[in-house]
Amino acid sequence: MATLTAPRLLDRRTDFPGLVTASGEPWHYLDSAATAQKPKAVIDAIARSYGGDYATVHRGVYARSADMTIAYEAARRKAAAFIGGREDETVFVRGATEGINLVASSWGGKNLKSGDRILLSQLEHHSNIVPWQLVAERTGAVIDVAPLTEDGQIDLEAVEAMLTPAHKMVALAHVSNVLGSVLDAKRAAALAHNVGALLLLDGCQAVPRIPVDVAALGCDFYVYSAHKLYGPTGIGVLWGRAALLDAMPPWQGGGAMIDRVTFECTSYAPPPQRFEAGTPHITGAIGLAAAIDYVQAIGVEAIHAHECALVAEAQDALSGINAIRLFGPKDSAGILSFEMQGVHPHDIGTILDEANVAIRAGHHCAQPLMDHLGVPATARASFGIYSNSEDVAALVRGLERVRRIFG
Amino acid sequence: MATLTAPRLLDRRTDFPGLVTASGEPWHYLDSAATAQKPKAVIDAIARSYGGDYATVHRGVYARSADMTIAYEAARRKAAAFIGGREDETVFVRGATEGINLVASSWGGKNLKSGDRILLSQLEHHSNIVPWQLVAERTGAVIDVAPLTEDGQIDLEAVEAMLTPAHKMVALAHVSNVLGSVLDAKRAAALAHNVGALLLLDGCQAVPRIPVDVAALGCDFYVYSAHKLYGPTGIGVLWGRAALLDAMPPWQGGGAMIDRVTFECTSYAPPPQRFEAGTPHITGAIGLAAAIDYVQAIGVEAIHAHECALVAEAQDALSGINAIRLFGPKDSAGILSFEMQGVHPHDIGTILDEANVAIRAGHHCAQPLMDHLGVPATARASFGIYSNSEDVAALVRGLERVRRIFG
Repeated sequence: MATLTAPRLLDRRTDFPGLVTASGEPWHYLDSAATAQKPKAVIDAIARSYGGDYATVHRGVYARSADMTIAYEAARRKAAAFIGGREDETVFVRGATEGINLVASSWGGKNLKSGDRILLSQLEHHSNIVPWQLVAERTGAVIDVAPLTEDGQIDLEAVEAMLTPAHKMVALAHVSNVLGSVLDAKRAAALAHNVGALLLLDGCQAVPRIPVDVAALGCDFYVYSAHKLYGPTGIGVLWGRAALLDAMPPWQGGGAMIDRVTFECTSYAPPPQRFEAGTPHITGAIGLAAAIDYVQAIGVEAIHAHECALVAEAQDALSGINAIRLFGPKDSAGILSFEMQGVHPHDIGTILDEANVAIRAGHHCAQPLMDHLGVPATARASFGIYSNSEDVAALVRGLERVRRIFG
Repeated sequence: MATLTAPRLLDRRTDFPGLVTASGEPWHYLDSAATAQKPKAVIDAIARSYGGDYATVHRGVYARSADMTIAYEAARRKAAAFIGGREDETVFVRGATEGINLVASSWGGKNLKSGDRILLSQLEHHSNIVPWQLVAERTGAVIDVAPLTEDGQIDLEAVEAMLTPAHKMVALAHVSNVLGSVLDAKRAAALAHNVGALLLLDGCQAVPRIPVDVAALGCDFYVYSAHKLYGPTGIGVLWGRAALLDAMPPWQGGGAMIDRVTFECTSYAPPPQRFEAGTPHITGAIGLAAAIDYVQAIGVEAIHAHECALVAEAQDALSGINAIRLFGPKDSAGILSFEMQGVHPHDIGTILDEANVAIRAGHHCAQPLMDHLGVPATARASFGIYSNSEDVAALVRGLERVRRIFG
């Protein structure tokens, strides 16, 4: 197996200072779907942006502030181009969660009315459920839930049958954070548009794992988080079609998002500034740009092939362990959920941790999917640029030990 | 003059790698009210948190994630204690702007109704105006504007006369970002409470400059931003009384803020988690904690004395330059606004920049205050821990050059 997949595997582990334990041993980090480790290039870019480059953006008349503004807007261009979008359609937010909340609150608050329908799926992350529940409660709109196919993909046949002209919004995960299922987003966009609905894609897990081009997909909104893309915490991207953003009311009020403020009447700046109130997460944008540079130098196609090879390797190996049941599709994008009969996932996680193997155990912020799978939780191993066959081997050794302990 | 004030001045300049120009010359950074430079201790803490310490919080079963969760919650305790608050009353937000938006939207959206009144002041930053305008529009509440005294303080006599039982919220800057005026916050709280209103304080400029104790002040909400406190961008603090936060509906939906999600009914976690949807700005919290450690080792009282001495030095020196008019009170907390007759503040800023002196020129996100002062903009010099008499001398030399150029 290792011989077959080895040629497709990347070897970038040494770029990542986080991948050793405190005592200097290799750390088998298999929780990249929660958050990715950071390459040294990103950490250094962030440190520089807090040191000799540091200044605020937008409002300074001195050179360093002008330079920082140029760097901040260059980061916006990069974050936009990385998903095939335009910079004036690209808003910096705290993360994908805030991006969805922004759309649900601003677009939804303005456009949804009683009896309108929103279509989600059974596998959505809470961040693509709760914002819609909040706006549904506010507007009287109703949420429909698309079922999954047997192997854990969003069932687009069912979606087609469910959609009606009452549907105004379809919001789906581009890649499932639990199962790694990849949505046929182009088809989902066509189905949504057929009934006059918009498509929002939660791209959190997609952007680090598969090439994304919002223009080719034909979606209307797209969100992603920097920290899952080897970048900093506290920043993410909302991309939206210009005409949609332009018609949306402000989300938060404050500095930088206004045109003119008086107590009688305040007018707002055009997008994207309209949606970026206050001093932005400047160094977050700089760090995200460095992360995109790093990822692009490797190539998302190569990363995808790398993670697919590791998933195949792990699926093969785990199938051979007694009592393990794998969830999700064969062609998962870098994410593998499983259970071991008679062992709670938290116990799996704890025992693996003793062997320096870090997986996630829990509901993965996807409780409706857990209900669908009929489990309270799963164990999840997820891969990144830096993952390798050693990590898979350590996972397998650890799971065999779990099986022995729980007999 | 220098001899008199020198004993009270701090000497921490070398802690800050940002205070040199690209060519290695001293940079006279007088824009700390916009954002503060970062000490090396903070930059190093951030870099460490992205390297060997990096993991997500709250949901990992492995040791490093548990450690990061402990560090994140320790940062919350520190951010709370720094202003005399409790950790369960302390929400991490993107910055002060988001904190005010959160209160205006969540508390205001629930509690304000048509005819209710909100009292602000003429010197507020846009971030403490626009969120209230947005919620006023949504609820039918009305905004009143307290005037200023002649030297640029919020006129609390007028506030007392204006307040009525219809007032539900009084929201004021603790320290003005343009004039440095310090509010008598204790009296403002008493006045607000006398009519049954709450007091929110915008502490952005106060927290880096004067000791703050929310319990002693008696306010109900307090917000501040880390990046003005020598900490990272993209994070800030909302403190609110437990009973108030507890009764407030969610602000954004997503992971970490829920108790249980189903498509039928979602229940929410108690504060502060209820208001922290999604993966938080983990390294932002770590960096803020490092910044607070740094500031507390020096002492806010000492910083206040240091900045007061520099303001006095600058006021004296600038009074001696022909055609300069100073705005604001004599006892400004570290912030000095001025104009030079016949010269646009942007031209002042540009010419000073040539001499490595960085000031702010503009409306400082306080257009209503500019209207009150009768100017489109001011020039503003603001001080920090690292500022010194050399910075003041460089400012004075630069302004004399401006005066010569503009004759």
